[in-house]
Amino acid sequence: MLIDRLAERITGLGNPIVAGLDPRLENIPEFIVNEMTDAYGETLKAAAEAIFEFCRVIIDEIRDTVPAVKPQIAFFEQYGAEGVGAYIRTVAYAKKKGLIVIGDIKRGDIASTAAAYSDGHLGEAAVGAAKFKVFDEDFITLNPYLGSDAVAPFIENCEKYDRGLFILVKTSNASSRDIQDLKTGNGFLYEEVARLVGEWGKGLKGKCGYGPVGAVVGATFPEQIIKIRGILPDAFFLVPGYGAQGGTAKDVAACLDKNGLGALVSSSRGIIFAYADEKYKNRFAEREFGKAARQACLDMAGSLRGANPVSP
Amino acid sequence: MLIDRLAERITGLGNPIVAGLDPRLENIPEFIVNEMTDAYGETLKAAAEAIFEFCRVIIDEIRDTVPAVKPQIAFFEQYGAEGVGAYIRTVAYAKKKGLIVIGDIKRGDIASTAAAYSDGHLGEAAVGAAKFKVFDEDFITLNPYLGSDAVAPFIENCEKYDRGLFILVKTSNASSRDIQDLKTGNGFLYEEVARLVGEWGKGLKGKCGYGPVGAVVGATFPEQIIKIRGILPDAFFLVPGYGAQGGTAKDVAACLDKNGLGALVSSSRGIIFAYADEKYKNRFAEREFGKAARQACLDMAGSLRGANPVSP
Repeated sequence: MLIDRLAERITGLGNPIVAGLDPRLENIPEFIVNEMTDAYGETLKAAAEAIFEFCRVIIDEIRDTVPAVKPQIAFFEQYGAEGVGAYIRTVAYAKKKGLIVIGDIKRGDIASTAAAYSDGHLGEAAVGAAKFKVFDEDFITLNPYLGSDAVAPFIENCEKYDRGLFILVKTSNASSRDIQDLKTGNGFLYEEVARLVGEWGKGLKGKCGYGPVGAVVGATFPEQIIKIRGILPDAFFLVPGYGAQGGTAKDVAACLDKNGLGALVSSSRGIIFAYADEKYKNRFAEREFGKAARQACLDMAGSLRGANPVSP
Repeated sequence: MLIDRLAERITGLGNPIVAGLDPRLENIPEFIVNEMTDAYGETLKAAAEAIFEFCRVIIDEIRDTVPAVKPQIAFFEQYGAEGVGAYIRTVAYAKKKGLIVIGDIKRGDIASTAAAYSDGHLGEAAVGAAKFKVFDEDFITLNPYLGSDAVAPFIENCEKYDRGLFILVKTSNASSRDIQDLKTGNGFLYEEVARLVGEWGKGLKGKCGYGPVGAVVGATFPEQIIKIRGILPDAFFLVPGYGAQGGTAKDVAACLDKNGLGALVSSSRGIIFAYADEKYKNRFAEREFGKAARQACLDMAGSLRGANPVSP
């Protein structure tokens, strides 16, 4: 089962890091962008090839240091069909290299529309007698605002195709308070959503003790993490907001159980653009951006182990 | 201003209909699918070409009967990069034919990620010195769950590029109650979200009296529509759920002002798959699916006028 493979990778590598692949073109080493615009002109294809090449090198360098990567589809989709093609190739490449892939797509729509997303991303799209695993991510992120019937087609494909979900509960951004922190008759809205996530994932559990229907909970809100863990003892958390956004190793340690399981801690800029960071730029040349990313993964793993000494 | 162009089209055509382009491959006339699989095999390209061709014919037939179309990106995206290419071509084709285009994308993400979506869909993506209007929809739909900072980059591009938004407030599906109907200290959650939409759109208004930051409110919830109208007197509503989902002409009449403005009423299956409906299938052959869609638009316009006799 996918969730057990994830747990094994976390235990084997000794860290629960997911490297966020947010390939902003303006932050990618210039030589890559130049190489692609030389080959294809200043076109969407050049942009798509540059972000794929950037992700490919990062994946090659970090694949044996962290359990998972999380490509953010927005940074690909903004370049249209070419960009979406690059996203699909990035997902496939990361999986081929042994990484677990979380597609950060945050989709959410009703009934038959949700089924179309679910078939495209987690299941199969049929064309005549042929079937295609089109996006083929292991996990995807989902937005819960439309309620149960909007989530059901994804749960179905989780079971059928051994996939997983991370559903937005309390996001890492400051204005997550606008809606998620509203008080209801039964606590805060994010607590209500956490209870729904618990219902949606009921009955699904791997040998590792966790289920494939997880929750997104920002590292920037350590108190809320503890409350949500109380509601969802068996859900894997995807925890963004570590590093650049302000979440610390201590903040995320609270998500992890005594075996170092129960959460994936995500960092994007801090890993993939380490080559441009004060901390690394004297040690790594621009062309060594992949090695800088690798070092950033190893350093982050060390910080997380320091804050959670019982983890593997 | 876009919102005034929309108002003029509604007034000129005498109806506020948006035809939802939900091109489910299994419901598209077989001869189109066969033509494309003959040409391209049972491939994602064949699927993409079939859904584009289907949408193209519908657009040609209905372009002078309704103000707007609403392609649902999920039905394209499920076929990957080829499908997203077909979506982009459908948007461009509809605009070329004079239709206003609402991209039903329901995106929602934080800060710089939201900016990437916003640049791709409403603004421009830069590659070196070149700039591309990639998706180029007039309006898009958005999910509000992540709060203000997730919406800000879209508002910015609304002003800069004269675009519009429809933000999910109370969706048409039954389980919209799971989260949207939770009671807060200040009414129901959807009322809180409506108030946020009002804040986000503040200061933006066209000559027609409405602003470009609108709300999605399901025709299936007539009482809630009235409450939301009380909170958002100047917001255009996008009203799905008419017809197949159960909303009636009387239900949606409450969204429209005395000039027949203030809302777009969406129907998808009822229009685009009219050719397969009991009501139309004896009058139109399968190959006349476009003409059946046209007739369905005219009939729906008549029903809406009957229920709101003061409209144009």
